[in-house]
Amino acid sequence: MMRSHYCGHLNAGLEGQTVTLCGWVHRRRDHGGVIFLDIRDREGLAQVVFNPENVDTFATADRVRSEYVVKATGVVRRRPDGATNPNLASGEIEVIATGLEILSQADTPPFPLDEHSDVGEETRLRFRYIDLRRPEMAEKLKLRSRISSSIRRFLDDNGFLDVETPILTRATPEGARDYLVPSRTHQGSFFALPQSPQLFKQLLMVAGFDRYYQIAKCFRDEDLRADRQPEFTQIDIETSFMDESDIMGLTETMIRNLFKEVLDVELGEFPHMPYEEAMRRFGSDKPDLRIPLELVDIADQLKDVEFKVFSGPANDPKGRVAALRVPGQGAMPRGQIDDYTKYVGLYGAKGLAYIKVNERAKGPEGLQSPIVKFIPEDNLNTILDRVGAVDGDIVFFGADKAQVVSDALGALRIRLGHDLNLLTAKWAPLWVVDFPMFEENDDGSLSALHHPFTSPKCTPDELKAAPGAALSRAYDMVLNGTELGGGSIRIHDKQMQQTVFEVLGIDEAEQKEKFGFLLDALRYGAPPHGGLAFGLDRLVMLMTGANSIREVIAFPKTQSAACVMTQAPGTVDARQLRELNIRLREQAKTEG
Amino acid sequence: MMRSHYCGHLNAGLEGQTVTLCGWVHRRRDHGGVIFLDIRDREGLAQVVFNPENVDTFATADRVRSEYVVKATGVVRRRPDGATNPNLASGEIEVIATGLEILSQADTPPFPLDEHSDVGEETRLRFRYIDLRRPEMAEKLKLRSRISSSIRRFLDDNGFLDVETPILTRATPEGARDYLVPSRTHQGSFFALPQSPQLFKQLLMVAGFDRYYQIAKCFRDEDLRADRQPEFTQIDIETSFMDESDIMGLTETMIRNLFKEVLDVELGEFPHMPYEEAMRRFGSDKPDLRIPLELVDIADQLKDVEFKVFSGPANDPKGRVAALRVPGQGAMPRGQIDDYTKYVGLYGAKGLAYIKVNERAKGPEGLQSPIVKFIPEDNLNTILDRVGAVDGDIVFFGADKAQVVSDALGALRIRLGHDLNLLTAKWAPLWVVDFPMFEENDDGSLSALHHPFTSPKCTPDELKAAPGAALSRAYDMVLNGTELGGGSIRIHDKQMQQTVFEVLGIDEAEQKEKFGFLLDALRYGAPPHGGLAFGLDRLVMLMTGANSIREVIAFPKTQSAACVMTQAPGTVDARQLRELNIRLREQAKTEG
Repeated sequence: MMRSHYCGHLNAGLEGQTVTLCGWVHRRRDHGGVIFLDIRDREGLAQVVFNPENVDTFATADRVRSEYVVKATGVVRRRPDGATNPNLASGEIEVIATGLEILSQADTPPFPLDEHSDVGEETRLRFRYIDLRRPEMAEKLKLRSRISSSIRRFLDDNGFLDVETPILTRATPEGARDYLVPSRTHQGSFFALPQSPQLFKQLLMVAGFDRYYQIAKCFRDEDLRADRQPEFTQIDIETSFMDESDIMGLTETMIRNLFKEVLDVELGEFPHMPYEEAMRRFGSDKPDLRIPLELVDIADQLKDVEFKVFSGPANDPKGRVAALRVPGQGAMPRGQIDDYTKYVGLYGAKGLAYIKVNERAKGPEGLQSPIVKFIPEDNLNTILDRVGAVDGDIVFFGADKAQVVSDALGALRIRLGHDLNLLTAKWAPLWVVDFPMFEENDDGSLSALHHPFTSPKCTPDELKAAPGAALSRAYDMVLNGTELGGGSIRIHDKQMQQTVFEVLGIDEAEQKEKFGFLLDALRYGAPPHGGLAFGLDRLVMLMTGANSIREVIAFPKTQSAACVMTQAPGTVDARQLRELNIRLREQAKTEG
Repeated sequence: MMRSHYCGHLNAGLEGQTVTLCGWVHRRRDHGGVIFLDIRDREGLAQVVFNPENVDTFATADRVRSEYVVKATGVVRRRPDGATNPNLASGEIEVIATGLEILSQADTPPFPLDEHSDVGEETRLRFRYIDLRRPEMAEKLKLRSRISSSIRRFLDDNGFLDVETPILTRATPEGARDYLVPSRTHQGSFFALPQSPQLFKQLLMVAGFDRYYQIAKCFRDEDLRADRQPEFTQIDIETSFMDESDIMGLTETMIRNLFKEVLDVELGEFPHMPYEEAMRRFGSDKPDLRIPLELVDIADQLKDVEFKVFSGPANDPKGRVAALRVPGQGAMPRGQIDDYTKYVGLYGAKGLAYIKVNERAKGPEGLQSPIVKFIPEDNLNTILDRVGAVDGDIVFFGADKAQVVSDALGALRIRLGHDLNLLTAKWAPLWVVDFPMFEENDDGSLSALHHPFTSPKCTPDELKAAPGAALSRAYDMVLNGTELGGGSIRIHDKQMQQTVFEVLGIDEAEQKEKFGFLLDALRYGAPPHGGLAFGLDRLVMLMTGANSIREVIAFPKTQSAACVMTQAPGTVDARQLRELNIRLREQAKTEG
C-alpha cells in the first residue's frame, strides 16, 4: 500500500510518527517562505508543511498545483498554538514533509472544488469525476453505500436470500413505458428492461424461497421530473406466510435500525393511518406529519347556501368542501394570499377562499372575508368551531371535486408548513393502510391503485359486486411526506387473480398472453405471500438531505435522459442495426 | 408469522412442544390407517402424523395431495425406535398433528420433485418455480446468496464503497457485441447495456473514491456457449494507490475467507505463475494444477529429423513441439488413443503421436510407436529422459503452431486428468501474472490481451518500439482450471493511454470519439489505480459443483437467449416502435 494513513484519519495520537499520505492537492499556500499543502483523500484533509531547508522536496512542492496527485511522507506534529483548525478532523496536527512525489499532474480544473461555485449543472455532470471530489458530493455516495450495507446486513441476518432477477425480461405490467432491447437471435422480438422484479419475486415465493430480497435496478422510460431517473434502484422484498402486520413490523424495524446505525436517529414506533383518514385530514396519501395543520370537512354546513361555488361540491357525492386553519396568520398580506391562490391553481383549484378571524366575539363583523356574506351565521360559527379558529387566525377553504380539494389544500398545507417554519419534528414516519383496490379513470373504467397482484380484503364475489368499495391489503411507508416504499399482500389464489383482471377489463385472451405464466404458477401450490419495495434513491435523498436525485447517483442522466459525460445515448453503425433487423424510420422513408 | 418453526429446524430438543409448520406437501403416505405427510419448506422436511381419532384434521389430511400448501400444528415427539431417519435434519422426531389448514391447492406438478427425473430442461425452465423447489436446486441459490453476502461483508469491512454504475450507458469497448436500447428522447441514438463497469470504476478512482466495489450486472449479446448467459454478474473491484501485489493480496484474502466461511475449506496461499510458464508447462493461461501432468518442450531435439511433421514446427519461431507423459498408461488401448486423437483434433491438432514405453532398457525395440523410426536414438533418449519416462508409461506428442500445440495438449492433459482420476487435490488456486500486453491477430494487427486500459510494464517509448514483447501489469486468479477473475493496474497517464491506443490502431479521431471522456479525466489528476473483476456465476458454479451456469441463476435464458417461462423476448406493438422511431426491416421492405 502506498499510503500509511488516510489524511482524514491523522490525529494527535500519531505525534512523532512518520506517515505517508496519498491524495490530491486541495489547496496550496505559500507563507513566510514555507509551502503548505492541504492534501485531500476520501477521508478528509491533512496539512503538510514544506520547509525550504529540505531543498529537493521543497522544489517538488513548489511545482505542484491544485488537483495534482501526490504522495507525501513526513512526521506528524502538533500545530503551534493558534494554528489549529477545529473544522478539520486532523486540525490539531500537521505533517512536516520529508519527501514528496508527484504521481499525476493535473490541468486547472474546469471549476473550483472548494466552494459552492456558480458553475452550471451540465458542466458538473460533464466532469462528474471532478464534481464527485467535492466532499459534500462524495459524502452522499459514501452514505448511500452505508445505507445499502446496513439494509443488506439486516436482511441477511433475518434469513432473507439475495436473489438476482433478470434485467432482460418481458414487458412488465406496471403501466409506465418500457425500455426495449431488440433481440438478435429472435428477430422482431424485444426484451423489456424491468420496471420492477414484481412477478419474479412472486414466483420465487411459489418456488418456496420464503424470504427474498434484492437491491434491484429498475427502469422506466418516462418524461423525467425533478426526482426521476430512467434507471432507479429498489430495495425489493418478498416473504411467504407472513401477513401485513408481520411485514410492516419487520420492515419498520429495518428502517428504524438503519436510521439508528447510519444517522444515530431514533424514529420510534410508526403510527398506522387508513388511506381515508390521510386524505381527509391531510389531503394526501403520503401525509407529512411534521406539519401541524389539518383539513376539516365542512360540506354538511354548506349544502344549502346560495353560493354555488360551495353548495355545488357540497351536494356532489364526488365533491369535497374543506377548511384549513392556520393559527396566528390573520394578518397575512393580500400579496401572500394571491401567491397561495396561484399555487393551489397548479393543483386545479379555481380559487382560494379565506376568512381572517379578527374578533370572533363580534360575529360576522369580526371576520374579514369575501365569502362571509354567503354563509348563514350559524353555519359560519359551526365551521369556525369545528376548525378551532380563534382570533388572529386565517382559515382557507377549498370546494371542488374531492381530488382537486385534497390535492390543492394538501399542497397548500405543506407549503404553509415550510413557509411559516411550522415543522414540529425532524422525522415523521407512518404507515398508510387500507387503500382502495381501484381508482376510477375519467372514462369510468378502473385502474389498480397499487398493481393488479394486490390482494383485496374481500372475496371474489364481493369484489365483483362492488369493486369501487373494495379495500386492498396494501401498505405504504411514508416519511416526511415522501413515500419511501409500498407493498401489499399478493393474490395467491388463481380465481381471485382472474377476478381482479376481469374487473380491470383484461379479458381471458389478454390474461393468458400477458400473465399466463403467473396464472400457471398459481395452479401449482402458491403460498400466501406479500412484500414491499423501497425506493433506495429517495431514501438516500431524505437521509442525506439532497435536493435532487442526481446528487445521490454516481453517474446520473440529465432531464432529457442523456449522460453528458459519456455522450450516451450515441449513434450506432448500420451493421449493428442490420444484425438486429431494425432500421430507423427516417432512413426507411428516404429509401421508400 | 404463521409458522413457529421451519420444518428443517425441528429437532429432539423441541420434544413435547406445540409447533406450527407452513410448507408444501412433499410426500404423503398412508400406513396402518394413519396418514404421514412430509412437509417441506426452505430449510428442509418434517414428518407430520395424522391419526384418525382426530376426525376433522384427519379428514383434511386425507384431502391433501402433493405440493398442496398447508399449515400444520402439532406436538413434537421422538420417533419410535427404528423409525428415525438419519438423512433428515429433523429425522429423530415427528409431529403429531392437532390441526391442519389447506392454504393453497395444487394441480399435479408437470414433473416429480423428489428424484432426478427424466424431464427435459425446457420443461424445467418453463416451470422454473417448480424446478426451484427441488432441494438441490434451491441449495445452489441459497449458497449463491451466502457467497454474495460474504464477499460484500469482506469488502465493506475493508473500506470499499458499494457504488452503482449505469446500466443504460454508451457502447463499451470490450469488443463483444452490445445489447442496444433505442432512446425515445434522442431519436436515432441508442444506449448500450454495459459489458462491464470498467470505465466508470476508473472514473470513480479519478473522483477519489479510493476503494470501490459493486456486484454488477453485465451484458454480452454473444452466441451462447454452455457456460454463457446474455446477462451475467461480476464482482467488480477497483482501488487507488495500491500496486498489483497489494490488490492480489487483498482479493486472495477475500476468496480464502469466502471458502473458509461458506465451505469450511482452507485454500492456503496461492502460488504466482508467469503466463509464459503456464503456457509452457500446462498449455493454458488458466492451468488446472490439480492434474499432475506437464507439457515438456522438445523442439531442440527434433530440428534435424527428416520427419517434417516434427522438424517443421521445431524450426518455426511460431511453432512448438511438446511431449506429455502419462505415467503407467503404456497399455492404453488403441481405441482410447483414437478417441484422444479426435479430441485434440477439436483444438486444431492434425494428429496425436505417441510412444508406449514398454522396456526402455531394450532401446527403440522396447518402444511401441509409429514415430520412433523417425527419431535418432540419442534424441529419443534425451526426450524420454526429459519427460521422465519409465517403463509402463505412454508419452503423447504435439507439433504445430505453438497455439495449436498448447491448446491441444493442454486440453488433453485436462481430459486425461479426469478420465484417469489423477486429481491430486479438491481445490488448486493460483495467480497467473506477467501476461503479454497484446496478442497478434491473423492479419498481423494487435489486440489487447486484457483491455486497452491495462498498464504495461514498460515506458511508452519501449512499448512503441516492441509492442509484441511488452508485458502487462495484469493478473488472473485461476481455480481448478477456471479463470475466476482477472484484473490489472490501469494506465493513469494520458500519454501512455494514447500510445496504447496507437499501437492498437485506434487513431486520434476514434480515440476522441470513443474515449474522449477517459482521456479528459486523465488530464485532471488521475491516481495510480487498478482492480479486478470476478465472475460471480462461475465462482458459484465451482463452489456448488454445478454443471451449468443455468443452475446457479434463478431465471436463466436458454441457449438461444430466450426465457421459456415468461416468453421473453416478445413482440411489441407498432405504437411503441413508432415512439422509438424504429421499424423492423421486413416491415420496411413490405412498405417500400
